[in-house]
Amino acid sequence: VIAELICVGNEILTGLVENSNSGYLSRKLWAVGIPVRESTVVADQELAIRLVLEKALLNSDLIVITGGLGPTDDDLTREAVAAILKRTLKIDLGILQQLEKLFSDRGFVMTENNRKQAMIIDGSKVLKNERGTAPGAIIEEQGKILVLLPGPPYEMQEMFDNLVLPYICKYNSGNINLIRTLKCIGIGESMLEEKIKSSGIWNYLPLSYIARGLEVDLQIKGNGDYNTAMEQVCAAEQSIRKLLGNNIFGCDDETLPSVVAALLSSKNRSLAVAESCSGGLLSDMITDQPGSSKYYCGGIVAYSRDAKIKVLGLPEKILDEDGIISEKTALAMSDAVRAKFNSDYGIGITGIAGPESDDSGSPVGLIYIAVTCNENATCKHYTFGGGRKAIKERAAQLSLNTLRLMLLE
Amino acid sequence: VIAELICVGNEILTGLVENSNSGYLSRKLWAVGIPVRESTVVADQELAIRLVLEKALLNSDLIVITGGLGPTDDDLTREAVAAILKRTLKIDLGILQQLEKLFSDRGFVMTENNRKQAMIIDGSKVLKNERGTAPGAIIEEQGKILVLLPGPPYEMQEMFDNLVLPYICKYNSGNINLIRTLKCIGIGESMLEEKIKSSGIWNYLPLSYIARGLEVDLQIKGNGDYNTAMEQVCAAEQSIRKLLGNNIFGCDDETLPSVVAALLSSKNRSLAVAESCSGGLLSDMITDQPGSSKYYCGGIVAYSRDAKIKVLGLPEKILDEDGIISEKTALAMSDAVRAKFNSDYGIGITGIAGPESDDSGSPVGLIYIAVTCNENATCKHYTFGGGRKAIKERAAQLSLNTLRLMLLE
Repeated sequence: VIAELICVGNEILTGLVENSNSGYLSRKLWAVGIPVRESTVVADQELAIRLVLEKALLNSDLIVITGGLGPTDDDLTREAVAAILKRTLKIDLGILQQLEKLFSDRGFVMTENNRKQAMIIDGSKVLKNERGTAPGAIIEEQGKILVLLPGPPYEMQEMFDNLVLPYICKYNSGNINLIRTLKCIGIGESMLEEKIKSSGIWNYLPLSYIARGLEVDLQIKGNGDYNTAMEQVCAAEQSIRKLLGNNIFGCDDETLPSVVAALLSSKNRSLAVAESCSGGLLSDMITDQPGSSKYYCGGIVAYSRDAKIKVLGLPEKILDEDGIISEKTALAMSDAVRAKFNSDYGIGITGIAGPESDDSGSPVGLIYIAVTCNENATCKHYTFGGGRKAIKERAAQLSLNTLRLMLLE
Repeated sequence: VIAELICVGNEILTGLVENSNSGYLSRKLWAVGIPVRESTVVADQELAIRLVLEKALLNSDLIVITGGLGPTDDDLTREAVAAILKRTLKIDLGILQQLEKLFSDRGFVMTENNRKQAMIIDGSKVLKNERGTAPGAIIEEQGKILVLLPGPPYEMQEMFDNLVLPYICKYNSGNINLIRTLKCIGIGESMLEEKIKSSGIWNYLPLSYIARGLEVDLQIKGNGDYNTAMEQVCAAEQSIRKLLGNNIFGCDDETLPSVVAALLSSKNRSLAVAESCSGGLLSDMITDQPGSSKYYCGGIVAYSRDAKIKVLGLPEKILDEDGIISEKTALAMSDAVRAKFNSDYGIGITGIAGPESDDSGSPVGLIYIAVTCNENATCKHYTFGGGRKAIKERAAQLSLNTLRLMLLE
């Protein structure tokens, strides 16, 4: 089975909304061994949708179309699919009643345009939308499977995971493709490739490298029946882990925040953070993890000099003598926030995210990161490029990695 | 001129990296009146790239290809383009020297695979990469323009804005398409459409609606020579602004954080925020704005009950009697953080982001948002759905909108 993704929507094609559905679907499909051949974004125009769909029906076995199922006039996916398959559209009274109930439960009168969402393509299997109004559909046509899903990611994801994946998995047996991603930090892309090539691991499996921020993700691919593919992937993983050690922080869905979360939880230790230039991003990344309240006490964003003294309680002496962007200040921030929140570990970040430098003349991108606990303390400085948002991200990523390495000691 | 985007990379096709380049390029092209017909993601395979490129050359005038120009074996864009155009590839000694200098300046020895980045397609105009190693290229072929850019967004964006846009603008005259986006909050998508349809504005211009989170973005499209298109768009904007008033918070690139930033700056007022369930996201959004240190003092993420009492200084009495998730707590958070940071405005957010409820039994998604200043105070509560990240986002968005409305009073 080979899959193809079609994402319908002017909002994506004009760049107003990022296309997160294609990435989500790709990850889920590859994970069950279904490769994605191509992924296309098309306009909310019936003809455009039909042309892409016709080509997809020639090249792929499974076609997942997201978007264009809503209530407004520019939602045209149902019409285009029905036209290509030469099937009729009709109102489904059951769905119509559910829609009316949904609106009245929320205290609204259903507007007329919402009726459109009760139209179904003849012969399709209706997919109930638990999180919104537009239902989806699965249609089989001459051995091909077409899946129609609504565009909003939160609705689409639930429907794909619970209704579509179980349905398509039965078509996917025999030879499969397996991908495992090893996530590295503290080593560059070229260096990583040279290191792996010279070790000889390269010889027995296709690998690819993806640099993002400070991370390099290394994808291992296995092919064959399930057991063969799994054995290939596991053998390669073992060799690469031996080669790279602590440069590998995680695998597949793991992220630096999730890995740090697991370490803090398993060791029953707590954390508080003091941020300056990262501006709350580190705290946001930590609290994106469900259950973070178990180990995360909180943080202080001390953005101004005043806040560093009055809210965080840093001694003015350090700021005057060493400067706001200095090792001593970062360490003092980490210690101060640890004391304030009574946490086991503290992180302190100070630096300049830009675009302009501060009065001290420190260069944009210069960041000091300190991690401390009762028994240990470390502080390093870095110079990051990549603009304001990237500098914030790299500071937050690297502070989590520093904490990870300390937790592993 | 009609454009088409091709994004090359297994990391995108497998969903490991989100495709932000297509959105960026789309926004930039539409803004200068070049519509994007289609956008495709293809694998790092020479044949796959060639097939998509052949089709694009048939349908579009301008083809922008991102990715696949790096140093590793799976970077194959140059090879595919040269093959399709039947042109040769050769080493450019000038680029090779620049690459060697770049590496030695950074204190590295250039690895052998990096030489590949000095390969250029015969007859192409080389685009210098100021932020990375892989140069880009512009190639003209029988009236069509092909643009090759590296995949990393920070490199690609600088090259597109400074080298590609000025080059292609000369080809874009006569009839153009203009898009303006009005950004609304506090009104739903269906309601917005009904309101606009019944006002008659719909009749004279194509519009589309994009719901995202609590925002609905309304795109107005104009077509014709520059003056005609601009007049259409401005007339429609005026009518829609009259209809929707303060429900419109901004236009095009404006965001809630940027609009609030402009209001705070112009009124010379400062802000501090106290977050619980939003976990630092609000602070992160505020500090994503360049120059935010002028009006943003900082914030406290008081994630635990203890932190609310000891760090933020809330009276235990309020937490005991009204509960942590209550109007009084949100207002007290806003007042406390304002006092601590000595700011003009304060925001307090308390609620449950989920996935699980707390001991109090408040439902997941229940959020109290308070905004206060010396002369004014407001607090409202909401129940958001959409999962943990969406609940955090909506709480942050809505708190900024509440502040915006208070600043406009």
